[in-house]
Amino acid sequence: MSQPVERSPASTRTVFFVSDGTGITAETFGHSVLTQFELRFKQVRLPFIDTPDKAYDALRKINETFAADGQRPIIFSTLVKADLSSIVRQSQGMHMDLIQTFVEPLEQELGVKSTHTIGRSHTSTDSEEYKNRIEAINFSLAHDDGQSHKNLSAADVILVGVSRSGKTPTSLFLAMQYGIKAANYPLIPDDFEREKLPGGLQAYKHKIFGLSIAADRLAEIRNERLPGSKYAALENCRYEVNEAERMMRREGIRWMSSTTKSIEEIAATILQEIKLDPPIKD
Amino acid sequence: MSQPVERSPASTRTVFFVSDGTGITAETFGHSVLTQFELRFKQVRLPFIDTPDKAYDALRKINETFAADGQRPIIFSTLVKADLSSIVRQSQGMHMDLIQTFVEPLEQELGVKSTHTIGRSHTSTDSEEYKNRIEAINFSLAHDDGQSHKNLSAADVILVGVSRSGKTPTSLFLAMQYGIKAANYPLIPDDFEREKLPGGLQAYKHKIFGLSIAADRLAEIRNERLPGSKYAALENCRYEVNEAERMMRREGIRWMSSTTKSIEEIAATILQEIKLDPPIKD
Repeated sequence: MSQPVERSPASTRTVFFVSDGTGITAETFGHSVLTQFELRFKQVRLPFIDTPDKAYDALRKINETFAADGQRPIIFSTLVKADLSSIVRQSQGMHMDLIQTFVEPLEQELGVKSTHTIGRSHTSTDSEEYKNRIEAINFSLAHDDGQSHKNLSAADVILVGVSRSGKTPTSLFLAMQYGIKAANYPLIPDDFEREKLPGGLQAYKHKIFGLSIAADRLAEIRNERLPGSKYAALENCRYEVNEAERMMRREGIRWMSSTTKSIEEIAATILQEIKLDPPIKD
Repeated sequence: MSQPVERSPASTRTVFFVSDGTGITAETFGHSVLTQFELRFKQVRLPFIDTPDKAYDALRKINETFAADGQRPIIFSTLVKADLSSIVRQSQGMHMDLIQTFVEPLEQELGVKSTHTIGRSHTSTDSEEYKNRIEAINFSLAHDDGQSHKNLSAADVILVGVSRSGKTPTSLFLAMQYGIKAANYPLIPDDFEREKLPGGLQAYKHKIFGLSIAADRLAEIRNERLPGSKYAALENCRYEVNEAERMMRREGIRWMSSTTKSIEEIAATILQEIKLDPPIKD
């Protein structure tokens, strides 16, 4: 009898994200599960699988991968229609099905049938919520980096901080993910000398939130942009960060350090801190 | 014996999104399941539940909601640590657990233990992937609305279309979600008269992608911005859209209509069409 071939647990698996829509949910969901493993995965997106033909195409790709890899691919699926899902389920992959797993128990709990509707995860472009998001993106763009003081009363939050502390990506993320109108203003040496917040902001102090950052990290980021400049010098970064933090303390502005935080983490923290809890898309 | 009280299936349920991190995955996941039901839900975010104290706090909130609502809340959880998860599981809610449900079968399949690490779903800010995303956001901002022709060779995609066809939010979403450097250029009457793409773009035709939009929808959007203007007039919108589509056909530029599409759908379609498949975060 031949010895069984021992399979290396570390060999690269292929993972498919299969969706009848954009695949963003399948990807987010799969990613959050996969990051629990210290392994590398080969990842393949299969979005817009919304007809039987496309489902058979996906099935074929998965089976070809199984043949090529010699181990079964992992499938994260958000297919909603039973007929499409049942086609992909015939594959030789391991099926992780977000909808089937959770929708059926919920149908029982809620005492109603689900609609099994394709691509509902992203709100229709006619909805108020979608329009608010687009409006928030336009607002945040128009109010990026202190460009405009117009209409600040409409802002949900106003971010302040030294240049390159993370204000711009955070503002755009707040708008895009949560439909929050986020203006942002740099704190610059002029403001420190005047010992005052940039003009016009004083009136909106209740919705100002500050971002700070470790001076050495700031110097690193600025050096990528303007290498060797005074702007990027560690000493200057130390001065700006100290002054900015002193100003925020003096003005009683809530703030956090962005040094080791992703824009997702900064944004979620801001929502909590300023008790902004935007309605969840539905 | 008293008659059992019939519970209306349509009464508003409370839903909790519980996470040790930002809660974005729990929310995306829960949202995609909930949209399968034609019901309204009261939705509550509980992010950053990363200590036993906070888990007990969450447990208390859920049980209080059960008492107040008279029906059990639904919990979408991405808690990774077993000790935190087991606290929240003691609640009187219905527990939908993304990690436990899928990580355990995967451990078996992969032949390795998961790391059970908190908040790994969003990549660390030191990673190449994270830096690329921030760089892409900065690139897309600097190249918004034809602001700059510098460094176009670094663009992954260049969007063109008439003003208000959806180029800006799509560019920012491509950058933020996928780390794609997306420049965008408006097509304006000057370009139509010259019968040429905006200067400098000709050399990059292989990575240009067009957005069009139904003229009546465009007029609606522009009228919100500049009511009664020539810019917003239906006749002018018709002219611009026709000319833009004619130009894109003549130049052999791939394009799609953004009329009924969300920015997520437009972005995912562009990825497919120009065979851009950015590496998936890991």
